[in-house]
This record gives sequence, structure tokens and C-alpha cells, in this order.
Amino acid sequence: MLTLHHLEYSQSFRILWLLEELGAKYDLKVYERDPKTRLAPADYKATSPLGTAPFISDGDLVLAESNAIIDYVLDGHPDSTLRPKPGAADRARHLFWFHAAPASLMTIQFMDGIMTMLQTRAPFFARPLFRAAFSQVRKALIEPRLKRIFDKAEDDLGEAPWFGGQELGASDIALVYSLYAARDRDAFKGRYPNIEGWFDRVEQREAFRRAREKDGRESITFSFGR
Amino acid sequence: MLTLHHLEYSQSFRILWLLEELGAKYDLKVYERDPKTRLAPADYKATSPLGTAPFISDGDLVLAESNAIIDYVLDGHPDSTLRPKPGAADRARHLFWFHAAPASLMTIQFMDGIMTMLQTRAPFFARPLFRAAFSQVRKALIEPRLKRIFDKAEDDLGEAPWFGGQELGASDIALVYSLYAARDRDAFKGRYPNIEGWFDRVEQREAFRRAREKDGRESITFSFGR
Repeated sequence: MLTLHHLEYSQSFRILWLLEELGAKYDLKVYERDPKTRLAPADYKATSPLGTAPFISDGDLVLAESNAIIDYVLDGHPDSTLRPKPGAADRARHLFWFHAAPASLMTIQFMDGIMTMLQTRAPFFARPLFRAAFSQVRKALIEPRLKRIFDKAEDDLGEAPWFGGQELGASDIALVYSLYAARDRDAFKGRYPNIEGWFDRVEQREAFRRAREKDGRESITFSFGR
Repeated sequence: MLTLHHLEYSQSFRILWLLEELGAKYDLKVYERDPKTRLAPADYKATSPLGTAPFISDGDLVLAESNAIIDYVLDGHPDSTLRPKPGAADRARHLFWFHAAPASLMTIQFMDGIMTMLQTRAPFFARPLFRAAFSQVRKALIEPRLKRIFDKAEDDLGEAPWFGGQELGASDIALVYSLYAARDRDAFKGRYPNIEGWFDRVEQREAFRRAREKDGRESITFSFGR
């Protein structure tokens, strides 16, 4: 039996939603962050192959990396429509968004989060310097890259309701954490109606609601500013 | 006919090596970085779906994201052994390293690179402050995470010669850029003999040598410190 080791407020929410969409049988083990450092607890970091969330265990296998877990779980569900097969009409669209989620998108968001944390924790006298330097990085790199990604998302969701195409796909699941993190920072309101529609569709799904219930937190994402 | 739009000193080297390993027919278009900003030229950024390298074009399709391109190209070569099939002995190992390359590993390296750049470009009086703040991030986050990844790489390469397992895999190709970038910064010498052996095996491959020749640069990677 597969066990999902789910860290609260972390990227492992993706796997929780995936398993609910598949109606899979699994054990769920939920871990709380350290109340002071907000990091994963020591036993989580020791057991996870890279010390990161998510990870699963399945017999002797212990596997990390969200997308590796998604592909591995889907291997066990060959009839699922979540992963368009080679040659399918939505295949390239699936591949692009599935791989963009933890790569192009998460890389930029992670850097943005670390900068926010550095700025918050910097000694008082140094904050204006950090703010100035980081605002340069945000203007030159982070904001234009996020805009390219969200503009393309808006276009693609104008053509079909899901990142996966006509059906919900593994790419929607891979993107959920990043898109909620961006929405928490007001990235879409009023300017990205197709992306806003996507959130509505996601939140109407029974499996997504069950995942939120099992997670039991008021928010999916972690806030670096806390 | 597939066209690889290859930006010098960039992650698109992966795709060049992949196509050579497959003996694929393709057009190669090489783009030089702006000599002053070291960024991709304007026409590259305009045509690439997210403004990033690599991207390919194939008929009407224009596709970005290294791993999306790797999966897409491999779809067209169903007999290739580069992507272990679901259920194969090396499948989970393949999935882990294939997805870790642009996610866990590249995210950390990219942040490190941006910090180096900020430090180099900061006004003289501000450099000690930046150095102090970034050295905290390096010690608390970047170095421990890279160590976990490289320690696991060293262990796994003790069990089989390639990240893909007994045979070279798409995961080796996905990792090549990051591992050369780390080696350029002396991350392995003397401490990671299995990883050093991997570089030797890579450099003995005919297809890798052809890719280096077609690239024609003295280095695979981009240096943020330049």
C-alpha cells in the first residue's frame, strides 16, 4: 500500500489531490511544520530522499519529487485520462504545462519567496538596500517571467478549460500549488479571467474538495512572509 | 523536420545531446548571447514560448521546457531505451533523476547564480552586507540541499553506472547541464569519485562528442559571475 507523507502547507498537496482524483487506496500521514522555524520536522527531512516535500513510500521504494511521484502513481493507473498518451492531441500541451510547473514556474516563485524572507529578516538598517536590490531582480527577471507564463496560461485556457486540454490532466495537478501561491499574492484578479475560471472549476471538483478536507488547513500554500 | 533553437551556453545543450544520442534528423539553429547583457537575443526571447532556452519547432508546434522537449522527442522514438517504460526495473530511478534535474537541482542552482550576480553588481559599499546575507542563505539552504542531492547521486552511481540505471537514460541528459555547472564550481573533485566517473563515461560517448562539436563552445554552461 502506497503511503503519502504529506507536509502541511507544502507541495505535497498536489499528490493528495492526484490520489483523490484517481480514487486510489493509500495511507495518508500528515506532518506539521515546526511552529518556530516553519520547516519540516526532523524525521520528515531525514526520511525524504532529498529532505523535501512531498515523498511517498511504496514497499521498499521511497520516492521524492512531485512530478516523479505523479508519473509513478499514474503508471499504476494506465486507464486514467490524466496523462495524455504519446500521439494524443493534447500530448504536447500536457507535456509543456506538466514540466513547466516545477521548473520555469516554481524556480521563479521560490526565488521570489527567498527574497521576501531575506528582506523580512534583514537587520532594520539594511532593509532599504535589500529592497532596492530585490526590486531590481523582481522588475528585470521575476515579474516579466511570471507575466509570460501567466499570459500563456490565460491564452491556453481560452482554448480549452484545463491545462491538460479538454479534460483535467496531470499538468493541472502539477500546477495547483504554484497557481494558488500566485493567487494568494493577488496575481490574477480582474486581469486573468480564464485563470480565475480555472480556479472555479478546480474548486467544484469532488476530489479536490476531499483533498482539501483531508489536508484540513485553511490554505494550501506556505507563506514565506510569515 | 524538427528544429532545435539552441542558445549558446544554455540548457538547450541537453536537447543537442539527446538528438545526437537518438541519431535523429534535425535542423540546428544556433543563437549567440548579447555580448553585453549576456542574455538571449531579442528574436529568441520573442519566439520562445516563455522567452527561455531551449525551444524547438516542429511543423506548427513551438515547444519549450527541456523535459517537455525530451519527452516529446522520445515519443517519436518509441524503441529508444532512454526512457524506461512503466514497470521496468529502472523506472522509479529514471523518474526521480529526470524530474529532479530541472526542479530540486536547478531551482537551487539558479538561486545561487542570481545571488552571485547580485553580489557582483552591487555597489561597492553594499557588498559586505550582501555577502553576509547570501552566505546565510548558502549555509542554511543552498549548500545542504546540494549536498543531499550530490550525496544521493554518488550513492546511486555506486549501484549502476548511469542515472538511468544500467543504460544511459533521459535522466542523464536532463542532468548534464546542472552537473557541468556544479563541476565548473569545483563541487565534486576528490569527494565524489562516482560522479567523476560519470563525467568520464559521458565524455567517452560519441554522441556527446558530436554534440560538443556542433555546439562549438569551450564550455557547456553559462557563468553568472562573468
